[in-house]
Amino acid sequence: MSVKELLQSGDCGKEVEVKGWVRTKRGNKQVNFIALNDGSTINNIQVVVDMEKVAEEVMKKVTTGAAVHVKGLLVESTGSGQAHEIQAKEVIVMGEADPEKYPIQPKKHSLEFLREVAHLRFRTNIFGAVFRIRHAMAFAIHQYFNDHGFYYLHTPLITASDCEGAGEMFRVTTLDAKNPPLLEDGSVDFRQDFFGKSTNLTVSGQLEGELGAMSLGKIYTFGPTFRAENSNTTRHLSEFWMIEPEVAFNDLEDNMDLAEDFLKYLIRYALEHCMDDLLFLSKRLQEEEKDKKAEDRSMELIEKLQFVLNHDFERVTYTEAIEILKNSKQNKNGKFQYPVTGWGVDLQSEHERYLVEKHFKKPVILTGYPKEIKAFYMKQNPDGKTVAAMDVLFPQIGEIIGGSQREEDYDKLVTRMKEVGIPVASMSWYLDTRRFGSAEHSGFGLGFERLLLFVTGMGNIRDVIPFPRTPKNAEF
Amino acid sequence: MSVKELLQSGDCGKEVEVKGWVRTKRGNKQVNFIALNDGSTINNIQVVVDMEKVAEEVMKKVTTGAAVHVKGLLVESTGSGQAHEIQAKEVIVMGEADPEKYPIQPKKHSLEFLREVAHLRFRTNIFGAVFRIRHAMAFAIHQYFNDHGFYYLHTPLITASDCEGAGEMFRVTTLDAKNPPLLEDGSVDFRQDFFGKSTNLTVSGQLEGELGAMSLGKIYTFGPTFRAENSNTTRHLSEFWMIEPEVAFNDLEDNMDLAEDFLKYLIRYALEHCMDDLLFLSKRLQEEEKDKKAEDRSMELIEKLQFVLNHDFERVTYTEAIEILKNSKQNKNGKFQYPVTGWGVDLQSEHERYLVEKHFKKPVILTGYPKEIKAFYMKQNPDGKTVAAMDVLFPQIGEIIGGSQREEDYDKLVTRMKEVGIPVASMSWYLDTRRFGSAEHSGFGLGFERLLLFVTGMGNIRDVIPFPRTPKNAEF
Repeated sequence: MSVKELLQSGDCGKEVEVKGWVRTKRGNKQVNFIALNDGSTINNIQVVVDMEKVAEEVMKKVTTGAAVHVKGLLVESTGSGQAHEIQAKEVIVMGEADPEKYPIQPKKHSLEFLREVAHLRFRTNIFGAVFRIRHAMAFAIHQYFNDHGFYYLHTPLITASDCEGAGEMFRVTTLDAKNPPLLEDGSVDFRQDFFGKSTNLTVSGQLEGELGAMSLGKIYTFGPTFRAENSNTTRHLSEFWMIEPEVAFNDLEDNMDLAEDFLKYLIRYALEHCMDDLLFLSKRLQEEEKDKKAEDRSMELIEKLQFVLNHDFERVTYTEAIEILKNSKQNKNGKFQYPVTGWGVDLQSEHERYLVEKHFKKPVILTGYPKEIKAFYMKQNPDGKTVAAMDVLFPQIGEIIGGSQREEDYDKLVTRMKEVGIPVASMSWYLDTRRFGSAEHSGFGLGFERLLLFVTGMGNIRDVIPFPRTPKNAEF
Repeated sequence: MSVKELLQSGDCGKEVEVKGWVRTKRGNKQVNFIALNDGSTINNIQVVVDMEKVAEEVMKKVTTGAAVHVKGLLVESTGSGQAHEIQAKEVIVMGEADPEKYPIQPKKHSLEFLREVAHLRFRTNIFGAVFRIRHAMAFAIHQYFNDHGFYYLHTPLITASDCEGAGEMFRVTTLDAKNPPLLEDGSVDFRQDFFGKSTNLTVSGQLEGELGAMSLGKIYTFGPTFRAENSNTTRHLSEFWMIEPEVAFNDLEDNMDLAEDFLKYLIRYALEHCMDDLLFLSKRLQEEEKDKKAEDRSMELIEKLQFVLNHDFERVTYTEAIEILKNSKQNKNGKFQYPVTGWGVDLQSEHERYLVEKHFKKPVILTGYPKEIKAFYMKQNPDGKTVAAMDVLFPQIGEIIGGSQREEDYDKLVTRMKEVGIPVASMSWYLDTRRFGSAEHSGFGLGFERLLLFVTGMGNIRDVIPFPRTPKNAEF
């Protein structure tokens, strides 16, 4: 039985067995208390050991990190903090953990240090909580889409297309790294590469997702995407997971409704299924920030999640947002790192957060961005200047979702592709959706780790993915 | 409302709207019948058009593949084959599909041809069915593990580890393809590559999965894996999806129980949720094989699925299996392509299928394989010759799952790694699970497309993944 099941069961007086890892051991010559955890929950089960019943040489090996097998009686706990505990009849040490060498001793470790032992950090309360929440959010995503008639589409990771323009890409190759085959003109002969041409790791499944939506109606992707950008920040990963729903016959309004309903579902799911872990993370965050000035502290974690749940997202145009930002005290007093000079500029995280946290005091959906700062496939508005884009902005993290209605008009799309220099010929498969049975359709992308930063309150994106890939780092 | 919802609703006499793609149109001067499909189900909704009510120039554009928007009355169908149909009041063509150019005309297309237009093949009945089932199976996998207390772990795709030994790998790089930086000795300076070393696309998430299991208890992966093998067969892909559960404290027996329960759950889910699509695929398969001799025909699809559900999987040792195969008529009459000569040989698909289809007449789990033909991390049995491996064998496809109990003893594992030439130093993160709190644990891998071949009855693995990647092919 797992620790979670044991703690939930009311079977006091029953013989039980449990296996797990020792978090702490304390006690005296008469009695020892082992806090045992098996990863199923943040809560430990307490094992009470009568030192007369278990050999001393066994108990010596019961140290933090050791794997032990306990047989005993489940009883009501006399101590505080837990309902049940186990009176041990037998303790078997399956695997020791030398206290001189085991890195995760019961003391405060920095997140930086734990990143270096990422293969063991799941054994801490904080990362146990984060990765159980990561699971819960992934499951909620599948549940939501399944319940709403979407089909999960696995778009390809290796792609010869390079048209999303979302950033630099990793090359995938089996050519000899030192002596690649060359053509007569001295360039590399990619025809001899594995796929017969130069291939990369995908930056987005959207274009293939559109193919799915224009046949199956409603699809979503949920898979890894890649950026070969040399960005060493708390917000960038070279490998991360994206969720991209795409819906035939949806316009921008439908798309906003979907995004809002979806995000609220996920946050409600977290509150309903992960409260133990959320409470732990909330306490950690408050501890972390207790020396900060009140105005610099983050919103309390649960409160922040409820803040999103309890507000209709404010839907505002980019043009209105620019006016608000330009005329804000913040801007006039030079408090923005990037001053807002006027229409046409791209918004930074500080601007997005200002709109959400200071101005509207609720999540915001911005629409109608200038076409110059958005991707080629977005539906062109009649004004000739803007596109039917939408970004959902959240407290703490700014943009959490970016999406749009897609341009369904073949001629307009081709014209725009030519304007921005996208090779039309190599994209004929994409254009076929506009050539045959075109219809309005919309979709968006949610960065999974961005969502997790929000839900867990963690500050560094490397702490919400099991084994982060960043420039110069591909450990484990 | 989707076509699926319309067909299920009993709201006859109600005004409805539906959007979808035309599958076929037939009729005469008085009345036209449009078969409309939006991807939500294999069944079309029939739209009946009184030609006096809808303009002729509109109806001319209603051709196969066109996207149309229909408003009308939901009524009981007078024809056979469906319960409801729509009496059209208005038909709007959103996107035409020139019959001279649209490739998916209403006639029989070969699977090879449809592979060339993979971006449009979702619009056929067969691929609609396959990819709806693919979704259902993916969801069932997440549901099963979530219900059983497993945590979904996203193991990394880009990895510097090359120890699984499961095949050749793709290199991931940002170095200049033609002029890579060189070290003094003339070799490529991978320190200047993006991750500061040579990196590859993963062939398995298992090793990282073990790290998760030895902390969180029960985990599973479900993500893309890669093989740079030059295999052009109906069973190999360069990019495919794998499911790999890993469970702390599970021995081989638990592992077999999990595999059997899991596979039966998935097949039961398919029968309960995908019957329309399965019936279509079953009919297709029978049509396909009607000219074959009875003994060469596959088992009927639904029957084959029930065959798995209704039998306890036979658990047999490799050693027993070799005896059976060696002494089989098949072997003695030279009917095996690879004759079974004796203990130690690896089993081929033909042998696996013989055991399942001819000898035991039920799914089989083989255990106790010779250590030489299995991976280094498998638990060594006391006989010194075999390991605690298990392969689950199914009709039609042979091995569907491969797994094992893992070697939890540090010394035995290191000795074996040295024997087979795995660099121990670079694997110290993996060995830490055996150094600190080691315990018995087990897991297995299920190739998602292998499962789909079985459930859909399709014969070529390229037809059960949206955009197949194979040697010389990375289209779309």
